[in-house]
Amino acid sequence: MNTTQISAQRIAADIETIGSLSECDPAIGYSRPTFSDPWREARDYVIAEGERFGGETRIDAFGNVHIRRAETGGGRPVWLCGSHLDSVPSGGKYDGVMGVVIALEVFRVAPDVPLEVIIFAEEEGTTFGVGMLGSRSWAGEVSPTQLAALKNRHGLSFVEAGALYGVDPRRMEADRLHREQYRGMIEVHAEQGLELWKTGIPAAAVTRINGRREYEVRFSGQGNHAGSTRMTDRRDALTGASEAILMIEALGRRLDQEQQHSVMTVGCVRVQPNAMNVIPGQAIFTVDFRAQEEQILDNGEQRLREELDRIAVQRDLGVEVAVNERVSPSPLDETLRKLFQEAARRLGKTLPEVPSGALHDAARIATCLPAGMLFVGSRDGISHDPREYSRNEDIVEAAEIVLETVRG
Amino acid sequence: MNTTQISAQRIAADIETIGSLSECDPAIGYSRPTFSDPWREARDYVIAEGERFGGETRIDAFGNVHIRRAETGGGRPVWLCGSHLDSVPSGGKYDGVMGVVIALEVFRVAPDVPLEVIIFAEEEGTTFGVGMLGSRSWAGEVSPTQLAALKNRHGLSFVEAGALYGVDPRRMEADRLHREQYRGMIEVHAEQGLELWKTGIPAAAVTRINGRREYEVRFSGQGNHAGSTRMTDRRDALTGASEAILMIEALGRRLDQEQQHSVMTVGCVRVQPNAMNVIPGQAIFTVDFRAQEEQILDNGEQRLREELDRIAVQRDLGVEVAVNERVSPSPLDETLRKLFQEAARRLGKTLPEVPSGALHDAARIATCLPAGMLFVGSRDGISHDPREYSRNEDIVEAAEIVLETVRG
Repeated sequence: MNTTQISAQRIAADIETIGSLSECDPAIGYSRPTFSDPWREARDYVIAEGERFGGETRIDAFGNVHIRRAETGGGRPVWLCGSHLDSVPSGGKYDGVMGVVIALEVFRVAPDVPLEVIIFAEEEGTTFGVGMLGSRSWAGEVSPTQLAALKNRHGLSFVEAGALYGVDPRRMEADRLHREQYRGMIEVHAEQGLELWKTGIPAAAVTRINGRREYEVRFSGQGNHAGSTRMTDRRDALTGASEAILMIEALGRRLDQEQQHSVMTVGCVRVQPNAMNVIPGQAIFTVDFRAQEEQILDNGEQRLREELDRIAVQRDLGVEVAVNERVSPSPLDETLRKLFQEAARRLGKTLPEVPSGALHDAARIATCLPAGMLFVGSRDGISHDPREYSRNEDIVEAAEIVLETVRG
Repeated sequence: MNTTQISAQRIAADIETIGSLSECDPAIGYSRPTFSDPWREARDYVIAEGERFGGETRIDAFGNVHIRRAETGGGRPVWLCGSHLDSVPSGGKYDGVMGVVIALEVFRVAPDVPLEVIIFAEEEGTTFGVGMLGSRSWAGEVSPTQLAALKNRHGLSFVEAGALYGVDPRRMEADRLHREQYRGMIEVHAEQGLELWKTGIPAAAVTRINGRREYEVRFSGQGNHAGSTRMTDRRDALTGASEAILMIEALGRRLDQEQQHSVMTVGCVRVQPNAMNVIPGQAIFTVDFRAQEEQILDNGEQRLREELDRIAVQRDLGVEVAVNERVSPSPLDETLRKLFQEAARRLGKTLPEVPSGALHDAARIATCLPAGMLFVGSRDGISHDPREYSRNEDIVEAAEIVLETVRG
């Protein structure tokens, strides 16, 4: 057993450095959109550190970074360990970064362990509208054609915007994940919920990852003058959308009572024409729906559609529902979870087990490889926000469990 | 009595030409933001037509265009007649344009009448956030300092963006409206409501113009991860805002039952960070509130504030309410309305009387000069929308009443 080599100082410094490379303002938060300068600088920092400790870097055709020592594993399967560096707009310092930094630190201190550090591209989905794109496309779930159709706010596709960062449709077919090369995937992530922090637990093993469905809902009414159109003569798309947003909140609460850890969220809204003196003719919003079982997702989607239709009919509005994404719930690998538990026991630590409400790259890789995750407590459950924080000693504890696990 | 000179063809052609000069797409609508190229081209067209019929042009220090014949009035007060050419984003072809085109047509056919055509700058308020800026600042209600503080979406102030279009703070003090120069102000405008169209009335005289208050409301909660934050642990700013938007709709309906022609509208919404997988930490929206009496506005504002506070307390959210604008209700000039009625009678027309829910430049000029307005029916009451439409024969009828009025 040897964990003394994990350096708390180095981990803290890595996190601060990557935070400082973001487009950042402590009041507004940290922004590293995929294929932006801050994202590239963060990635380059990890690459430089990996290479300083003997690593060689390969960027795959999907924009994911792989760092490993040339001779590692001697042709036998290696551990894959990492997470992502892209962030939501105005996010925090820990989401994704923590998992990359732990992988880097384990890589630094354990040259004897067959390990590949990975940085996945576009996990958050806020740049190209679909989450975990790097891991999903590497795992073969997303085609080059689909990647060429997903656009960022500048109208550039994942393929166009990623060309400078290694994305290359010609190499994609050959460059998919080869499962025989890997022993398993380990990702450490901030919990982004309250469970660990409120009970003072530093780290936990993740049992399963909720599935997610993403919808875009568009209510259509009649744009009109806000001064001269009587209240009774209106077909206001925004008041319809507002009724729907409250319905979605109530439906999310009912589903959570029926099965724990179900959630429904409206995160984006826009209205047209969006002028203070014009009744909105269109109101468009997203719905993010997560649950532990496919059946809850099916059932919730049906109830959502019925309620949206009811509101549209009552208000004489049009309504369209587009499904942007359907990700199934992912149970994580039980054998790997036992390895985490044994490693924790050898270190004299207890390791509780929790489900994940958030999606992670490990969930996508779990379709190809044994995948395991550790969570680290998030202060007050706050995430995707500049106030996101995890204790450095908790991060170090997770790093020590990872190191002990891969050393076996 | 001589009305035969008003040309229906010329009026129709003027409206089409100005529509074609807009940033336009029949599906999306007509956009002529103040101080944009399309707005300048529309203005230049009217100036060229006025000059072709003997007019001379003066642009005042606030960006308003004045066209009159050099010797007109012989030093005695002249009629002021016009409206505005700026539009809401994706608006229609008639709003504002109709009043300018009628003034131009009367100017063309009645060289004997002492008349000044006016095109007011920034009536809609969608470019600089405050409506009727050209008329209000000319009437002395807005200071150069205030104009320098109002910004468009590019961050340029009314003074900066307007510099190329005649706005000049150094001339403002000397360039205010001199009431002794004018006999009265006449504005023709699309009704933008259903009253005339549904009863088949071509045109009506306006009795009074509703007052308006504009607010910006900001709900503050806690931005957080949409997947890992339980429904019961959320402080979602958008669900609070949605509850407020429905409350505002209900309050508007109650006020309208208490006094006809009261309306409340939420036209703009934005959320932060506006990512599909992040619970909104901030939700900001505008409220547009109109009523016929100051007392209704005071009472409605108080009820609005109480309800917003109640929602914020119940949901553990912060709420701030900023007042962007307070415009008092404006009765229009009774004598001028009688002149309209006499002119209509001489032409063998009936001229019903209606209040205006919408604000207009004439409301601001009414604080300085006798001001009168005619409304022309709007198909289905639709306005601020590409489907905005008024019958050309109705517009011609209004033009004939104006001509008959100024000819006396």
